[in-house]
Amino acid sequence: MIILGIDPGTAITGFGLVEYLGNRYKPIAYSCLRTDPELPLDLRLQRLYQGLQEIIGTYKPDFMAVEQLFFNKNARTALAVGHARGIALLAGANAGIPVAEYTPLQVKQAVTGYGKADKHQVQFMVKTLLSLKEIPKPDDVADALAVAICHAHWSSDPGGLMR
Amino acid sequence: MIILGIDPGTAITGFGLVEYLGNRYKPIAYSCLRTDPELPLDLRLQRLYQGLQEIIGTYKPDFMAVEQLFFNKNARTALAVGHARGIALLAGANAGIPVAEYTPLQVKQAVTGYGKADKHQVQFMVKTLLSLKEIPKPDDVADALAVAICHAHWSSDPGGLMR
Repeated sequence: MIILGIDPGTAITGFGLVEYLGNRYKPIAYSCLRTDPELPLDLRLQRLYQGLQEIIGTYKPDFMAVEQLFFNKNARTALAVGHARGIALLAGANAGIPVAEYTPLQVKQAVTGYGKADKHQVQFMVKTLLSLKEIPKPDDVADALAVAICHAHWSSDPGGLMR
Repeated sequence: MIILGIDPGTAITGFGLVEYLGNRYKPIAYSCLRTDPELPLDLRLQRLYQGLQEIIGTYKPDFMAVEQLFFNKNARTALAVGHARGIALLAGANAGIPVAEYTPLQVKQAVTGYGKADKHQVQFMVKTLLSLKEIPKPDDVADALAVAICHAHWSSDPGGLMR
């Protein structure tokens, strides 16, 4: 199965496609979509939606996975991420792909075995599990791959959390 | 011109269509879209998107107006509103309708003449300006009508704020 992991943001949305077969992870494609900050918000969100539609059309993922976010501090950031996150979820739903949401704890647990792992440890394990030469940049791309791996992990684990 | 005002929310999205002709406001249709809280988020956002597409297809508004929000406190609420707000902006962009965003101050100023007016004053003036018998309920519907009136106001005022 091919899983599309998404780390949503209006300026940068990271995406990573991971194939999971026989307990092995294979990176298919990973990069990020950027939108022009000069454009009005509705057109930026439209570009993001179109970009995600293209990715879905090209790679035909079986599942989409998006991190479930909790903000403790910055409500302005939360609103901005919410815009992009809503677009990502809609792109999945409109393509008829099952969309799963995972908490940061579930992602860290799946990728590193430790729910309180730090960012560097998660990035290192993404690189290792996918046999990449380097940690993907920017962070949004590594985070998108991490959530894709997380989905593979939990969906292959009968005790895992799926909806 | 017909203006579609939106007050976005994942559970309830208020909408109001107002025709503005010769300095007069005429209510065309106003109500709200509700999504089933039992459904997963991606499907709720899909229903919302479909609902907005239907409204746009039926009434063919010339403009869409959405309130620009500022949250000081609850980041969780901001994320949730962001999801729905992103969907509303995308629905406008994908339909090729110019989308304008207005601050709460601009909305209050346009509807009541006073940027610090309270909720009741705004609702009362929405009822008055549109010659309605009652204040539309729930609040999301009155708020959607207010931002539609706001767009008419600023777009007819050469000193107003349009993008």
